[in-house]
Amino acid sequence: MDFLEAMRATVGAPNVLTGADAQPYSVDWRERYRGQALAVVRPGSTDEVAAIVRHCAQAGVPLIPQGGNTGLCGGATPDDSGQALILSLQRLNRIRGIDTDNDTMEVEAGCVLQAVQQAAHDAGRLFPLSLAAEGSCTIGGNLATNAGGTQVLRYGNMRELTLGLEVVTPQGDVWHGLRGLRNDNTGYALRDLFIGSEGTLGVITAATLKLHPQPVARCTALLALDSIESAIALLGRARAGLGPALTGFELMAGNCLLDVVRCFPQQRLPFEGASAQLPWYALLELSDSESEAHARERFEVVVGDALEAGCVQDAVIAESMAQSHALWHLRESIPLAEKDMGKSIKHDVSIPVSRMAEFVQGTNAALQAAFPGIRHVIFGHLGDGNLHYNVAPGEGWAEGRLLARQDDVYALVHDRVHAVGGSISAEHGVGQLKRDVLPRYKDPVEMALMHRIKAALDPQGIMNPGKVLVA
Amino acid sequence: MDFLEAMRATVGAPNVLTGADAQPYSVDWRERYRGQALAVVRPGSTDEVAAIVRHCAQAGVPLIPQGGNTGLCGGATPDDSGQALILSLQRLNRIRGIDTDNDTMEVEAGCVLQAVQQAAHDAGRLFPLSLAAEGSCTIGGNLATNAGGTQVLRYGNMRELTLGLEVVTPQGDVWHGLRGLRNDNTGYALRDLFIGSEGTLGVITAATLKLHPQPVARCTALLALDSIESAIALLGRARAGLGPALTGFELMAGNCLLDVVRCFPQQRLPFEGASAQLPWYALLELSDSESEAHARERFEVVVGDALEAGCVQDAVIAESMAQSHALWHLRESIPLAEKDMGKSIKHDVSIPVSRMAEFVQGTNAALQAAFPGIRHVIFGHLGDGNLHYNVAPGEGWAEGRLLARQDDVYALVHDRVHAVGGSISAEHGVGQLKRDVLPRYKDPVEMALMHRIKAALDPQGIMNPGKVLVA
Repeated sequence: MDFLEAMRATVGAPNVLTGADAQPYSVDWRERYRGQALAVVRPGSTDEVAAIVRHCAQAGVPLIPQGGNTGLCGGATPDDSGQALILSLQRLNRIRGIDTDNDTMEVEAGCVLQAVQQAAHDAGRLFPLSLAAEGSCTIGGNLATNAGGTQVLRYGNMRELTLGLEVVTPQGDVWHGLRGLRNDNTGYALRDLFIGSEGTLGVITAATLKLHPQPVARCTALLALDSIESAIALLGRARAGLGPALTGFELMAGNCLLDVVRCFPQQRLPFEGASAQLPWYALLELSDSESEAHARERFEVVVGDALEAGCVQDAVIAESMAQSHALWHLRESIPLAEKDMGKSIKHDVSIPVSRMAEFVQGTNAALQAAFPGIRHVIFGHLGDGNLHYNVAPGEGWAEGRLLARQDDVYALVHDRVHAVGGSISAEHGVGQLKRDVLPRYKDPVEMALMHRIKAALDPQGIMNPGKVLVA
Repeated sequence: MDFLEAMRATVGAPNVLTGADAQPYSVDWRERYRGQALAVVRPGSTDEVAAIVRHCAQAGVPLIPQGGNTGLCGGATPDDSGQALILSLQRLNRIRGIDTDNDTMEVEAGCVLQAVQQAAHDAGRLFPLSLAAEGSCTIGGNLATNAGGTQVLRYGNMRELTLGLEVVTPQGDVWHGLRGLRNDNTGYALRDLFIGSEGTLGVITAATLKLHPQPVARCTALLALDSIESAIALLGRARAGLGPALTGFELMAGNCLLDVVRCFPQQRLPFEGASAQLPWYALLELSDSESEAHARERFEVVVGDALEAGCVQDAVIAESMAQSHALWHLRESIPLAEKDMGKSIKHDVSIPVSRMAEFVQGTNAALQAAFPGIRHVIFGHLGDGNLHYNVAPGEGWAEGRLLARQDDVYALVHDRVHAVGGSISAEHGVGQLKRDVLPRYKDPVEMALMHRIKAALDPQGIMNPGKVLVA
């Protein structure tokens, strides 16, 4: 029996896709990576995943786990050899159970994030992970990349939101690690090791997730700032004054918001005059366990003090959910307005908060010196030091002029990120995109440890080869 | 140059202890494990640690990292072969820096926990890890065992409190991983792997810790309950009503509190009549970022509703810090009262909250059937499912009668923990104490993965051999 026949015998012929049917799985959604797969297999159970992996191990066929295919670093796209199997987890999409007393839920890897959020909500709980792709990304992909999003400040990354895992090892064994325990110190942190390993150490098939209480009320404020230093002073005040009720702290450069209102005239900046021309704005979100009125009161105290102390120039506290949404909509529209400026170069980096101002000022100046005329599109989750530091083409530049210099821009920005103790991938992972530059920024001892672990768990090198580490 | 001479040349003769000087390091503080060391070396810097490890690797000398020597599972005690080196980290006790804008601090492994808490406090921040041994345990030991304590519910274990590590590998290389980043997805979770590995994968020499805002006020309440089911209903209400302000939820069996007030007549239970005779009590702590008055008000709402709903029988909300302390003191005195009952058998286990009642009722009954007359001492951090499920000798039992059956008691309790999806070590680790029974309760795939990782990182097997895993 040849390999593909064995696959068909395992998952049923309709779940083994080849040729044109396999094509959509072989391209990432931004169409930056285009590969060729031997086939796409779509198992319907953990046992089927294990059987597939055993076949692959026996035949030496590399395999690439794939969820919603919404990744930004090519981590789920095959190379163009046509030899690797894409293992689509999309049919593994059951919510296996919700335990409200234990505040946990057990879900399969192929569950779409939004379906998980909804199921938690229906059970009167909050699953706090939230990100732009939530309508199509899957929990398996969120786990593989240790996804972050806008509420990391309060709830942490995917790693902090997960208690247990079920994993198929590169040998095709199943590790039944779906524990719903907040305290368990019986050996090595295998859960944390598989999370964020981008499918290079095994296939995550299910997870036990942590649930949180639903906030009773949410309130949003938009604050106008004269500098990053002021934004950091405001962050300190908001943390001290609001404690864990502060669930979001987004920083946006003023030009980003001006571009949004220019591109989308139905949106407006809720400031006028000088306050509408400031270099930075911060969007704060407060989640309250009492009431809307209490949420607003708390905001008023902290924002009032910050205005008085001079670290905020102007402020709007949303008076309704509609206004909260309008403020968030400004923030969420930045990537769309950015698209309108031409193809940009994106950096998903993190920086110690204390070095944020130094990084932005120094890097802005160095980029202008090296590439005069380029435009900066800077926004991010200041609360956890995560910056989307993007570079757009200059006004009127021919298409391709900026992208031709992409590697130079990457190198300049990443070198500066590294110099201030930052990370070149905050929340998107490494995939293919940053694999080759990783050794430039990682301690060689750390790289060596990673290679040792990869070799120990996947000695054949069949799990998502060429991702994260050079094979 | 012989091995000990090389040690003296590395750290200076006064920092190499042998004979009687080495004895105190070779016994755990509860005197359950007594070993013999080749010597104790006390390095004063990370470079000295690395040099020592390189010597050990070359000579094939096993080494045992040791912090405050307060562990409960023999994880830092040598065997009796006299061949292993104890590597005491106590001289590595500098607080290297505090970054209040980034809310991080960098500390060496030998820092005593209380000194770290104090330094954070002096900088206007909270380092929330808190446990009984905080006056003598070290951060290195807290990291090695992924320590928990009373505030896990809100702040997580040591793993969630740590952002970066500096580690000396079993080859004597230094991994400089002291990153102060909340978002960093550039490869495998080495930090999480070293944390909780009990010194079997390398030597943690320093860490970057996460700081939190200081709460403005704390308030404590003691609630009288008729059943564990009621305690769980109360936990749900407290989580929903207080959100992240709920920083502690301790469950105590009624007989524990009666024993405390019998042993320590200066303490009293703040209830009378039937309320002083209930089977369970819960101690709740609320940390507020507004005021004492606000903290009390919030407690009154949640506790009032719970009383009305019948899931709480009686309640006392502390009216002052002194009263809060008195309530906590009751909880903290349980282990001392327990000591007065004779040598007991302790279980540090965790259980899914939803199966807590079933576990306690079933295990209590099974223990009484197997060992008629034994006494139960049950308390723990219900909020994170962590139970100290202890068994004391029956009234008037001869010394040794219970301890002679220790292995049978362990097996009965741990089998039941396992049957409800719990963990046989919630927060104390494995060490020597639970090493041999671990394979009985762990998925064999998980054990195999752990052995693979151990062999990959420490192929010579010199790092704390015989701890966690059978060598």
